[in-house]
Amino acid sequence: MEAEFIHWLARRLPPHPLLDVGLGDDAAVLRAAGSDPRRVISVDLLTEGVDFVLADVAAERVGRKALAVNLSDLAAMAALPLAAVIALALPRRGALELAQRLYEGLIPLAEQHGIAIAGGDTNCWDGPLVISVTVLGELTPAGPLLRSGARPGDDIVVTGRFGGSRLGHQFDFEPRIAEAQWLAQHTPLHAGIDCSDGLSLDLSRLAEASGCGALVDLSRVPVAPAAEAWAAQCHDGSTPLDHALADGEDFELILAMPAPQAEALVAAQPLACGLSIIGQFVPERGLWQLQSDGTRLPLTPRGFEHQ
Amino acid sequence: MEAEFIHWLARRLPPHPLLDVGLGDDAAVLRAAGSDPRRVISVDLLTEGVDFVLADVAAERVGRKALAVNLSDLAAMAALPLAAVIALALPRRGALELAQRLYEGLIPLAEQHGIAIAGGDTNCWDGPLVISVTVLGELTPAGPLLRSGARPGDDIVVTGRFGGSRLGHQFDFEPRIAEAQWLAQHTPLHAGIDCSDGLSLDLSRLAEASGCGALVDLSRVPVAPAAEAWAAQCHDGSTPLDHALADGEDFELILAMPAPQAEALVAAQPLACGLSIIGQFVPERGLWQLQSDGTRLPLTPRGFEHQ
Repeated sequence: MEAEFIHWLARRLPPHPLLDVGLGDDAAVLRAAGSDPRRVISVDLLTEGVDFVLADVAAERVGRKALAVNLSDLAAMAALPLAAVIALALPRRGALELAQRLYEGLIPLAEQHGIAIAGGDTNCWDGPLVISVTVLGELTPAGPLLRSGARPGDDIVVTGRFGGSRLGHQFDFEPRIAEAQWLAQHTPLHAGIDCSDGLSLDLSRLAEASGCGALVDLSRVPVAPAAEAWAAQCHDGSTPLDHALADGEDFELILAMPAPQAEALVAAQPLACGLSIIGQFVPERGLWQLQSDGTRLPLTPRGFEHQ
Repeated sequence: MEAEFIHWLARRLPPHPLLDVGLGDDAAVLRAAGSDPRRVISVDLLTEGVDFVLADVAAERVGRKALAVNLSDLAAMAALPLAAVIALALPRRGALELAQRLYEGLIPLAEQHGIAIAGGDTNCWDGPLVISVTVLGELTPAGPLLRSGARPGDDIVVTGRFGGSRLGHQFDFEPRIAEAQWLAQHTPLHAGIDCSDGLSLDLSRLAEASGCGALVDLSRVPVAPAAEAWAAQCHDGSTPLDHALADGEDFELILAMPAPQAEALVAAQPLACGLSIIGQFVPERGLWQLQSDGTRLPLTPRGFEHQ
């Protein structure tokens, strides 16, 4: 539903002179009116039962995640967060304690990134918990980093490791704000996206937005230890690599950069999270896997498809 | 619950150098970094069953209202809206059509005020409809208009008429953006709030934030025709004035300004919505009603108390 809706909305919305980047990227970019940096704005809404189950996870971790997913969107634009507003729909029973616990989870993350909690709207109702966070940020001179700038021949570079996020990483991940800033300042970045729905799916989206394809060397995909543990629990024949490619909620960055710089960067490993080259962007649209004989096969993008 | 929560949160949140105005007013004001105007940000979340019932109201009107309530908050700060982001939690059945109808309702209001729809997050779930809108605006040199600036001796000035909003006004109201701008440019405004929860309740909040009281001449409260119609339907002994004082969702402005200017303004009636003086701010804290002999009685603030 979401993809079809965004397609409809992109045609329905009139163009607006304030929007440098509108729908379809990780966040919107607003044109600057004066000497201020351009503003970036992003919103994410999490719902009980879809994004979390309160019986299984502490409310503090839910609150933290609701802010962190927006920070990951800003990281994918190489933007810096400034302020957040939080809207809550709380089940009436225990509403005050739940609201406090959500904030106790998100306040430390806001402080870590120097973000002002600028306001909110707190409501009670007879439904399950809904938490919507909007983050306002600003661009540094290096940004914005868009989905649409990858060029054939660029390397595919990723931060961190992938897979098994359901074992905890989906709540405890560190948004790659500082890493994106460092990379944007030290390396020519052509494009970027954060991995929320699945490495293969988000990579295919970045390639599609750039009008090219992506060729992945599966042997070079950094697989998280949690992906091994999760595959062992699933008992469905899935491999750790399957989970790295499709689980999503890794909230790592998927980047396009010129191959020489990418190779120097990965050799130097300047970031604690690690950087890996997992393939190249290619002229032929679509997602591809490299075979050992150098030929390629189609690779099906898999991940969380928004309904 | 909400009042207790905001009280807790105001103590819990660390101060932040970016916040010129944080929690507790109609919107937050962010300090400007350069020559740009200061930014204002506001969020409101509406839920099915509390703020609207989809069986009784067209989805377009719900979408319009979700944006309009935020614009009313910005009007109460004498701010101009720039951009909005919209987060939706949609019931799975008919989600696409519902999302489209919500946007069809809010897009014309956005266009009317020149607002960019900068993005959103669209989700489906097994729960009822939730719509959360965040509006980013900017201050003009006349702003911000705060709740805390009323002084004893100021007149209480209101736009428009009050009561009976449930008969349609709660969805179809015009946010007083342009009126607030005009007033801020032509008159010394000391304080302002928009009437969302009830004239008497919101007025008492403004007086409380200003550290003074408010003395209302009930004979001067402008009562909407809808308040008469609603009182006639209620069959509970309530008067149109009762509804004007307590119904809420009028989304008119309640303002504090020096008495001489207020009297000149009301004599001139420069705004199509109408302007009325309904009393004065007084040193004695609390809400008061003026009696015909010139003495005063306590007046109980009534309206929608957020749970």
